Amino acid sequence: MNEIPGREDIERAHHLIAPYIHNTPVLTSQSFDSLTGCNVFFKCENFQKAGAFKSRGAVHAVMTLPGESTRAGVATHSSGNHAQALARAASLRKIPAYVVMPSNAPAVKVRAVEQYGGQITFCEPSLAARESTLAGLITRTGASEIHPYNDYRIIAGQATAALEFIRQVPDLDIIIVPVGGGGLLSGSLLSCRYWSPKTAVIAAEPEKANDAYLSFRERKFVPSVNPDTIADGLKTSLGSLTFPIIMQYVHDILTTGEGAIIHATRWIWERMKIVIEPSAAVPVAVLLENAQRMSGKRIGIIISGGNADLHKLLWNQP
Amino acid sequence: MNEIPGREDIERAHHLIAPYIHNTPVLTSQSFDSLTGCNVFFKCENFQKAGAFKSRGAVHAVMTLPGESTRAGVATHSSGNHAQALARAASLRKIPAYVVMPSNAPAVKVRAVEQYGGQITFCEPSLAARESTLAGLITRTGASEIHPYNDYRIIAGQATAALEFIRQVPDLDIIIVPVGGGGLLSGSLLSCRYWSPKTAVIAAEPEKANDAYLSFRERKFVPSVNPDTIADGLKTSLGSLTFPIIMQYVHDILTTGEGAIIHATRWIWERMKIVIEPSAAVPVAVLLENAQRMSGKRIGIIISGGNADLHKLLWNQP
Repeated sequence: MNEIPGREDIERAHHLIAPYIHNTPVLTSQSFDSLTGCNVFFKCENFQKAGAFKSRGAVHAVMTLPGESTRAGVATHSSGNHAQALARAASLRKIPAYVVMPSNAPAVKVRAVEQYGGQITFCEPSLAARESTLAGLITRTGASEIHPYNDYRIIAGQATAALEFIRQVPDLDIIIVPVGGGGLLSGSLLSCRYWSPKTAVIAAEPEKANDAYLSFRERKFVPSVNPDTIADGLKTSLGSLTFPIIMQYVHDILTTGEGAIIHATRWIWERMKIVIEPSAAVPVAVLLENAQRMSGKRIGIIISGGNADLHKLLWNQP
Repeated sequence: MNEIPGREDIERAHHLIAPYIHNTPVLTSQSFDSLTGCNVFFKCENFQKAGAFKSRGAVHAVMTLPGESTRAGVATHSSGNHAQALARAASLRKIPAYVVMPSNAPAVKVRAVEQYGGQITFCEPSLAARESTLAGLITRTGASEIHPYNDYRIIAGQATAALEFIRQVPDLDIIIVPVGGGGLLSGSLLSCRYWSPKTAVIAAEPEKANDAYLSFRERKFVPSVNPDTIADGLKTSLGSLTFPIIMQYVHDILTTGEGAIIHATRWIWERMKIVIEPSAAVPVAVLLENAQRMSGKRIGIIISGGNADLHKLLWNQP
């Protein structure tokens, strides 16, 4: 796939991956609506296969591998959710998945990659280390690289979350989506453009990993430098393919602080009784902080994933 | 209501409370089915109003209060979920709710009672202290006592969970229900008897609060003595009204240890991405330990509640 995915590409992707992913439910909360004065719908990708929207893109990429290159398998670097999604997708086709993970990846994500049969190589938690380690792996194995977000096959796959959402809940005024590398965001932008052009897409980003925010304000690519946020899925920089889509179509990019992210995570766990990871709480935090000017709107939030590290956070206490 | 609730009583209760409670969803998990070799359905009362099935009985009791006694309000003692359910139910009718809570009740449950406008009196964590404190409160206020489980209005209300479940998932071979005071269990037994007599109801209890287990084995009432379990909702003894229903209709009562309860709680959080309280994990733990002899069965589990104390467990770490 060498061009920005079109309407038919995304529809074809959705059809292709449908047997292997969940059409995830949309939840609502009277308490959250009272709190915000908005009419809010949560698209629960924390209930997605492998615990995050990443399964959509990964399955799409693996299922559309050209025949001759399939057997050598797939390879990627990822802080976590793409890694386990790709390992699972590869296991569906019974091909190897080689995964480069930073040494500080959450334990639950490492364990999940192993459970899906992924072969992990750890490296230093820097983009340079990830890329060089991955390059070595690919040279050695002949595997096809499946980038976590800078790949139109991935973008088309992630776009199916918003496509489903729009069909489940028509006439959304706003959809708020977290932004890390921009795969989910650019896919959501395309799906809204094709199927719900009146819906404004707003990106939500941690202040402490605000490269997309800066890129948007300065209208030029600004990389993520030493991001340090509890929202571990959102540390990556935008990619060369996601950046232009975002610049063209995003309505706004809003940031939020660590305390607000933790508060929002806790609120969702405690009141909605669903487990979400901190990255997924970033749009919730942004909405809580900006509720007044969105008052009365129909707002969709994509809850991106549920792979919180319970082992570390909760269960290993003295 | 002075007799064991009949079929019409439970149907009437369901009709009466329907506007004020959720018809909670039933979830399934391919992973859990693979793990157990069973076909398992989870009735998610953790998504119920006020976070537990207790809202069913509390709303039923409050909505059927005789007119002349309504204004003085309602009163109860409860370790938590009944307390907040009753406070919420009373708020629906704008009448006072007086709640006696043990001093060791989870903070999240105390906070929730306050948020619903309940008036709390703390006491020592013993049945004797709870009962004498409550008696004093009732003398002073004239409020009607709504016992957490030993009340046919409550039993009829709790019975509506199994009634819904049977209608959502026909032909269950087994339903596993946690047992504390026995309100949910006796209600589930009645609903299964009336609407799905082929379904065997199995009760699940912590080893460390095994009064129902001992009562069932010895065919006589055995009180709970110094229960000490993480499943804080299941510490109470059976009541004089729930005991005979349980003796007559329960298929079996199985117990499980603290480690298994914690493991099951964690499994559900981590894999199903829903927040459940430890009491709700007791049937899950029982099934995991007895999966082999239930292999191939269609099994329903009532996930009783989701009011886990996140503040204490998760968020207050250094």
